[in-house]
Amino acid sequence: MTNREAMNLASDCAQALFQRDTASQAMGMRLLSAGPGCARVGMTVRADMVQGHGTCHGGYLFALADSAFAFACNSYNEATVAIGCSIDYIAPAHLGDTLNADCIEQSRSGRTGNYDVRIENQQGQLIALFHGKSYKVRGPVLTQETPNE
Amino acid sequence: MTNREAMNLASDCAQALFQRDTASQAMGMRLLSAGPGCARVGMTVRADMVQGHGTCHGGYLFALADSAFAFACNSYNEATVAIGCSIDYIAPAHLGDTLNADCIEQSRSGRTGNYDVRIENQQGQLIALFHGKSYKVRGPVLTQETPNE
Amino acid sequence: MTNREAMNLASDCAQALFQRDTASQAMGMRLLSAGPGCARVGMTVRADMVQGHGTCHGGYLFALADSAFAFACNSYNEATVAIGCSIDYIAPAHLGDTLNADCIEQSRSGRTGNYDVRIENQQGQLIALFHGKSYKVRGPVLTQETPNE
Amino acid sequence: MTNREAMNLASDCAQALFQRDTASQAMGMRLLSAGPGCARVGMTVRADMVQGHGTCHGGYLFALADSAFAFACNSYNEATVAIGCSIDYIAPAHLGDTLNADCIEQSRSGRTGNYDVRIENQQGQLIALFHGKSYKVRGPVLTQETPNE
Repeated sequence: MTNREAMNLASDCAQALFQRDTASQAMGMRLLSAGPGCARVGMTVRADMVQGHGTCHGGYLFALADSAFAFACNSYNEATVAIGCSIDYIAPAHLGDTLNADCIEQSRSGRTGNYDVRIENQQGQLIALFHGKSYKVRGPVLTQETPNE
Repeated sequence: MTNREAMNLASDCAQALFQRDTASQAMGMRLLSAGPGCARVGMTVRADMVQGHGTCHGGYLFALADSAFAFACNSYNEATVAIGCSIDYIAPAHLGDTLNADCIEQSRSGRTGNYDVRIENQQGQLIALFHGKSYKVRGPVLTQETPNE
Repeated sequence: MTNREAMNLASDCAQALFQRDTASQAMGMRLLSAGPGCARVGMTVRADMVQGHGTCHGGYLFALADSAFAFACNSYNEATVAIGCSIDYIAPAHLGDTLNADCIEQSRSGRTGNYDVRIENQQGQLIALFHGKSYKVRGPVLTQETPNE
Repeated sequence: MTNREAMNLASDCAQALFQRDTASQAMGMRLLSAGPGCARVGMTVRADMVQGHGTCHGGYLFALADSAFAFACNSYNEATVAIGCSIDYIAPAHLGDTLNADCIEQSRSGRTGNYDVRIENQQGQLIALFHGKSYKVRGPVLTQETPNE
């Protein structure tokens, strides 16, 4: 597979996953880029995402990172799920902030992989660090109906 | 402080936090119980919480556990935030599942604490394990308007 | 398999692993008990285990928990390795302290499992919490030379 | 403080810590470099570090990463301890392997910080990924007797 083919495959997989990912769409996530082992996803902090301390609920920061991780680890057209993740909160995100989550692959061998995600706000300030461990299950990401051609 | 007072304080703190936690409410969470260092929160998996693999998005499982953790670690009327959390996915949650997250305190000393959360579904099946590390900031949880007196 | 057989198998596996585990032996660890999915290991903090802040090096606390985890997750005579672990330090351990690490199984399905370890000192004070994620590889724990039959 | 002063301070702190760190020395660790928020430590896998599966005990990989983390997070002459760490095992390390652990700072604000460590072997193969969370306690790293001049 050429680099170009690998990039196209990653993009097709991410778009196919995103299309059937009601949850990420309902959170207003935007799939911004995807390549082999990497992905970038954006999200704006809405009023319904704010919690008791007046900042973005950790669950939404986690969800944003988790989606970027999912697009990255599924970029080889091999269905892959998360088995464990961790997040470290660095700075709070506020109502209206536009967040970007960038996922990169740290390792991938056998059935497992390790991925890191950085979430930054519109000023480039680090908001959270996320680490995901992936596990390859059976089957491809793309189905025959997927508009891959 | 008597046990009874500690229990009432925990309950007041959790309810006050929950009342101003738009995010947890918008996800349909139910605050089921809260005591000193512990809390139980319920949530039903809605259609908008399902992701590309057809199961509940990990972000919503995380959010549920994170809220239970927040109510538990804020139960002493000392404002406390999460500094890092991890989650291990055991079994998928499906559309319509009713999940309960139970948080217990494993340690609390100085400004930090450690809390464990178990998420189970309506059949008592283990769905996810969560670990949260807390950090005490300044100020109380309850404000003067809070119906504590 | 009866409960008694499962207990004997766990004990045989742990002892066989411990016998060939030069590292745990060189750290002075004591295999205290092992059952299906659980194990207890003891260790005394020696002078060569103390670090720059005057307390037991985190690596030795981790190693103690990791060994208890290894005996617990290998207790079914299926070779199993760690793929990721985390530790939370609660209180320091000092020179001469006798530590016990108790591992219990939180989940086990497919090829992966989740295990929790508590490390306590001789006064029963909590020193550290450890979480391990296991992954089943090929082959048994016991070889034919192992005195299992 | 100039860059040069910050670099010298980091080096002094790491060397002072290493000098009183009996544990790291007994494991044969070599302090290879230290700067503001970063450090590199080397270690060779000895016979007494091998465990039941025939590879380096996870505790020693963890200890190596943990020491690099300690030198990095103490590089500002403010005494800092670990409050929680995690490690992901990528490939096994074998008897005689020479490992290097490189720690970099991901964040540092208030009293807490986040650090990542990569452990590689002599072929540059990734062996493990480590994440450490630091917490600043009272006092400096360097004492007056420390040969800082």
